[in-house]
Amino acid sequence: MSVSNARLPVPADPQFAERVRASFARQPAMTTLGARLVRVAAGEVEIEMPFSEHLTQQHGFVHGGILGTALDSACGFASLSLMPVDAGILTIEYKLNLLAPGRGERFRFIGRVRKAGRTITLADADAIAVEEAGRERLIATMTATEMTITGRDDVRS
Amino acid sequence: MSVSNARLPVPADPQFAERVRASFARQPAMTTLGARLVRVAAGEVEIEMPFSEHLTQQHGFVHGGILGTALDSACGFASLSLMPVDAGILTIEYKLNLLAPGRGERFRFIGRVRKAGRTITLADADAIAVEEAGRERLIATMTATEMTITGRDDVRS
Amino acid sequence: MSVSNARLPVPADPQFAERVRASFARQPAMTTLGARLVRVAAGEVEIEMPFSEHLTQQHGFVHGGILGTALDSACGFASLSLMPVDAGILTIEYKLNLLAPGRGERFRFIGRVRKAGRTITLADADAIAVEEAGRERLIATMTATEMTITGRDDVRS
Amino acid sequence: MSVSNARLPVPADPQFAERVRASFARQPAMTTLGARLVRVAAGEVEIEMPFSEHLTQQHGFVHGGILGTALDSACGFASLSLMPVDAGILTIEYKLNLLAPGRGERFRFIGRVRKAGRTITLADADAIAVEEAGRERLIATMTATEMTITGRDDVRS
Repeated sequence: MSVSNARLPVPADPQFAERVRASFARQPAMTTLGARLVRVAAGEVEIEMPFSEHLTQQHGFVHGGILGTALDSACGFASLSLMPVDAGILTIEYKLNLLAPGRGERFRFIGRVRKAGRTITLADADAIAVEEAGRERLIATMTATEMTITGRDDVRS
Repeated sequence: MSVSNARLPVPADPQFAERVRASFARQPAMTTLGARLVRVAAGEVEIEMPFSEHLTQQHGFVHGGILGTALDSACGFASLSLMPVDAGILTIEYKLNLLAPGRGERFRFIGRVRKAGRTITLADADAIAVEEAGRERLIATMTATEMTITGRDDVRS
Repeated sequence: MSVSNARLPVPADPQFAERVRASFARQPAMTTLGARLVRVAAGEVEIEMPFSEHLTQQHGFVHGGILGTALDSACGFASLSLMPVDAGILTIEYKLNLLAPGRGERFRFIGRVRKAGRTITLADADAIAVEEAGRERLIATMTATEMTITGRDDVRS
Repeated sequence: MSVSNARLPVPADPQFAERVRASFARQPAMTTLGARLVRVAAGEVEIEMPFSEHLTQQHGFVHGGILGTALDSACGFASLSLMPVDAGILTIEYKLNLLAPGRGERFRFIGRVRKAGRTITLADADAIAVEEAGRERLIATMTATEMTITGRDDVRS
């Protein structure tokens, strides 16, 4: 879909990558998940997470909600990368589709901004399971609505 | 809406409560969240989780995805309560609306079946923050689509 | 769930019912659907629509998207009922679950505000099919996120 | 995202295009919308619809639910293109994000299968407004969950 990429996103803050990395580092939930931010571009980020038993459900797969947590962060930080210095991001809602079990050696979560508005930003994200042999499989997708918040000390980046 | 409750759900398995409790106990992710299953009825369950810093995002609130994980489990176990002994439940998709920050002393997650079909079950759930003084606040809602799986050893309750 | 109804909604405009009815009357799409606004309360509206063949899909049932159109309006007008005189409502997103075929003599669409915020309002709605004998059946549910818009001439109620 | 396209979809029925076109032609709702099926490929379809006042809401834009109806059909027919001859498709749920007003000379709705499973297929779709000068704008996106139905006379393609 070339249309969705017609307007290349221009980050409002040239230091966006440092700001996104610093914000990610302040999320204790990402540490609990063992998740790392491995790539930051304007309007796109990638998070990686190893398989770990403490994140699983009763069938031995990573809990769908945990995949959702990493995807939510991927959407949020992709959106934050385009925001002005003084703006924070709140997730209003997201929709998660679970396509295959959360099984694999590790997982990649790739979030992208589809449309950045003044108040509302739409982002989506894919979760990809990586097996030991390196084979990749799409296991979940998300669309998320993010709201830009300015002038509130409790919601900064 | 009296209509949605017109058909009272009848659990296919009279031992449903024990089965749901045993399945919950096999979810390491719930232990990681510090979540407990505090109530099981036919088509409705309640999960409780204390506030804990290791579940928070950069603003000091519980990460929306973690609320989503507990709500997902609430929807799944509410659905499982109505299933036959040999059936498991897979979440196909869910939609999460985040209404207020994940701030409070503890959180209640109440999941209910809205319509149980042969293959597809629709459930919804509310997340309620409880403050020290006992005041309650609705902070998130979910609707989830669950699929009944039979005859697969890797997807049992 | 008593929690979700804890705060009874107070409409900002005492003339809200007239305003909602006038706005509904300006929606040509509702005329195309044959839909009527049959009830307006603070934070809740009901729309009714007869079965009509020009709204059906290939199996002879009302198209799911048409049910979604009426549910979207139910959510939007329920939200509008609580808004100030000079505010309009934009639907940011909605999620539709289709539970049973759109078959029946007529359909009821009941929309309710779950949480009204300053900028964002969450509403949900049920679609109920009514058979000739009067028997009712829940056939679809929606949750919708509405944004309050003020000071824009192109988005009034 | 090359991953999502790794497995090129192979239609189970070589005559899929004729079957999809015939099914579309049996949807009276599409006639009511003035919508035409302009392109059918394996796992992807495009629907076109001119602007028409009878589809608008109170601000003079095409009703979001009408955009949703065309997007729902785009997702459904993209899914149907990959199905066996005797299988039908039911939409279980969809999520619609509305990004910009439904304003334009005409609208393009492009639906694609993201993952085709035995029972469950995930599809998504974009709505693009085309202005008189030919300029295009992304105005809405959808993700939809489709269920494959076989052996039921009331749900054929």
